[in-house]
Amino acid sequence: MRVVVALGGNALLERGEPPDSDIQESHVARAAAALAPLLDGHDLIVTHGNGPQVGLLAVESASDPALSHPYPFDVLGAQTQGMIGYWLVQALGRARPGRRAACLVCRTLVKADDPAFGEPTKFVGPVYDETTARRLAAARGWQVRRDGTAWRRVVPSPEPAGLVELDMIELLASQGVTVVCAGGGGIPVVPDDSGGLRGVEAVVDKDLTAALLAESAGADALLLLTDVPAVLDGYGTPAARPIHQASPAWLRGRLRAGAFPAGSMGPKVEAACRFAAATGGLAGIGRLDDAAGLLAGRTGTIVRTGER
Amino acid sequence: MRVVVALGGNALLERGEPPDSDIQESHVARAAAALAPLLDGHDLIVTHGNGPQVGLLAVESASDPALSHPYPFDVLGAQTQGMIGYWLVQALGRARPGRRAACLVCRTLVKADDPAFGEPTKFVGPVYDETTARRLAAARGWQVRRDGTAWRRVVPSPEPAGLVELDMIELLASQGVTVVCAGGGGIPVVPDDSGGLRGVEAVVDKDLTAALLAESAGADALLLLTDVPAVLDGYGTPAARPIHQASPAWLRGRLRAGAFPAGSMGPKVEAACRFAAATGGLAGIGRLDDAAGLLAGRTGTIVRTGER
Repeated sequence: MRVVVALGGNALLERGEPPDSDIQESHVARAAAALAPLLDGHDLIVTHGNGPQVGLLAVESASDPALSHPYPFDVLGAQTQGMIGYWLVQALGRARPGRRAACLVCRTLVKADDPAFGEPTKFVGPVYDETTARRLAAARGWQVRRDGTAWRRVVPSPEPAGLVELDMIELLASQGVTVVCAGGGGIPVVPDDSGGLRGVEAVVDKDLTAALLAESAGADALLLLTDVPAVLDGYGTPAARPIHQASPAWLRGRLRAGAFPAGSMGPKVEAACRFAAATGGLAGIGRLDDAAGLLAGRTGTIVRTGER
Repeated sequence: MRVVVALGGNALLERGEPPDSDIQESHVARAAAALAPLLDGHDLIVTHGNGPQVGLLAVESASDPALSHPYPFDVLGAQTQGMIGYWLVQALGRARPGRRAACLVCRTLVKADDPAFGEPTKFVGPVYDETTARRLAAARGWQVRRDGTAWRRVVPSPEPAGLVELDMIELLASQGVTVVCAGGGGIPVVPDDSGGLRGVEAVVDKDLTAALLAESAGADALLLLTDVPAVLDGYGTPAARPIHQASPAWLRGRLRAGAFPAGSMGPKVEAACRFAAATGGLAGIGRLDDAAGLLAGRTGTIVRTGER
């Protein structure tokens, strides 16, 4: 049995904590301990978010006087894959010394004509005042938008269309290696004129990439791990109540009805529905520490065809 | 036939250039073009230096006000593996669209009792004035030393004792994947009490790691690529002359006699001698653009048992 796990950003860093290396490593150790029981009898493929980490590196790069211009987001994303992958591989090795783990730097194919490229929506990098934001936008060809009281750069968030390293992920997983891959949704690339691939400044949603990875790699289950025990129907309303089981069709109906916040739970719900509908497998959304219960269908929100 | 290639730092950045992403990517494109002819009939495993890159990230991390303390060198090294690995994989894909390439984040096992830990020699990270250097040393447990007119941190440079991901590197290479791995000499780790591995603040020489990798992976040849056409005997003296062929025994004698500068050519000569003596294979030291000629034994410095 093969399981794909997506770790949310909070698996690495909690809001308000300094993004120190040792703090993130202690969170990763907790994540690895929660994942260790899943290794019994399963191939495990682990992907993860990178929002706070790539944001930190973007701020550092933007303020580095040695550089003529900051590193682009594909390159910064590759940096975070190496760093977070290293942390996870080390922590998984300590949580279960008998099992191998490895991190493959991974690219996600997106379509050059994805409509998202015409409408950038994903906030990335440092916050600026409006004047600075507009100046940088003019100088660097960025698009910027108001984010609360500050201004930030926005990049497109195209759909994942393929995983460039899929066959290698499967090869390693089939050998019992826990594969850490496609962090931050994977480094987005499009085909170029040379027959190769070109990185683009975009951010692919990590949960949607996880769903595509799980489907493409023939996984039996997809676990989307976060810091809430279950998806709440009617989030933010007095009638909010946890969803324990759902079919993808019913849950998509609630998604379209606006029952879930777009920025956080929406992509997880969409990812779970895609995987469950396409494969008939189990998709679970819930707390990191409940990972084993989720896989058993006992806790969290379980999405599966045949549920109500 | 299997070939291991080690790219020097100059394959990514030349002295005096700003360390911009696009400048490094253009160097990487040149490196990939030089390596492409080696792919005909060969498995290729590529490793690389990371000195300027990890130095840049160390400066950024040390001056980031969001952090309580800078990221340690193992973590920064992992970041550079992701970044440089991504650049190389992309460039190799463009240089030879039919061949797969992938980057595996790699750790190098070192011995906790390596004498290098008692005598740090490798300069890393930013330059400081003496007062700042001594203050940071006291605050962070660093060792610092004078480097020319400035002061810098020094870390140990232990011997590579094993490649943690060796079997996965071999598995991917055996499938025709060009494997980019062990950048910066690999992330140095030692066994910890849990049966896992613990990162250490050290830098393993990338050429010595490349020699161990080539020997362990059963390579037929090891190419150490740099920006000089051949090793000079008596470097810096009026009698300096290029060495075209040498046996490991003869070359080691010249190394012990001080014929090569310790900081740059010394480790390459030692790495070439180790590989050639242990395996009977060909070790070549020369220019990146001469990679194909080196492998054919036509250019550069060829080290092989049976040479004079």
